[in-house]
Amino acid sequence: MYGLIGKMKAAPGQRDALIAILLAGTDGMPGCRSYVVAEDPTDPDAIWITEVWESQQHHLNSLNLPAVQAAIAKARPIIAGFGERFETRPVGGHGIA
Amino acid sequence: MYGLIGKMKAAPGQRDALIAILLAGTDGMPGCRSYVVAEDPTDPDAIWITEVWESQQHHLNSLNLPAVQAAIAKARPIIAGFGERFETRPVGGHGIA
Repeated sequence: MYGLIGKMKAAPGQRDALIAILLAGTDGMPGCRSYVVAEDPTDPDAIWITEVWESQQHHLNSLNLPAVQAAIAKARPIIAGFGERFETRPVGGHGIA
Repeated sequence: MYGLIGKMKAAPGQRDALIAILLAGTDGMPGCRSYVVAEDPTDPDAIWITEVWESQQHHLNSLNLPAVQAAIAKARPIIAGFGERFETRPVGGHGIA
């Protein structure tokens, strides 16, 4: 499996809007085993996204899905930047669909 | 919901053993919605754990479960230390059991 842990910063005041786009555009992506969107309690503009994919290729392929392309286009104007980003190799646990 | 993203370092050469303990001891924890154990591809001793709980109280309560207490006791000798740790407030996504 292939995992990503990453922080995204919304434009000021736009976190809720960005989260709504992330949640709507990322449903039913092939090979996506887990995709959790979370608020950062220490920064009102920051979002944590933790992802588990069947493989890195599944993740790369997802970026070309029409729904994901549409979400990226809609989100881009309200993304202020990115923070930490860690790649991982998930091996097991609970909640891996 | 309450989330945790954290890095744990195993004693040299003990990552597989530590992962086995983490996976065995953390099954069926009340209020645990997701618990993903992953290898760090950049550090042969490092493990990433990402967790989603119904509430922070559910997470705190889990630390008192006999199975978790046993896992902690078994793991302690092969834990070398801890790295990054981020608390989050998960709001939705895929794979939240």
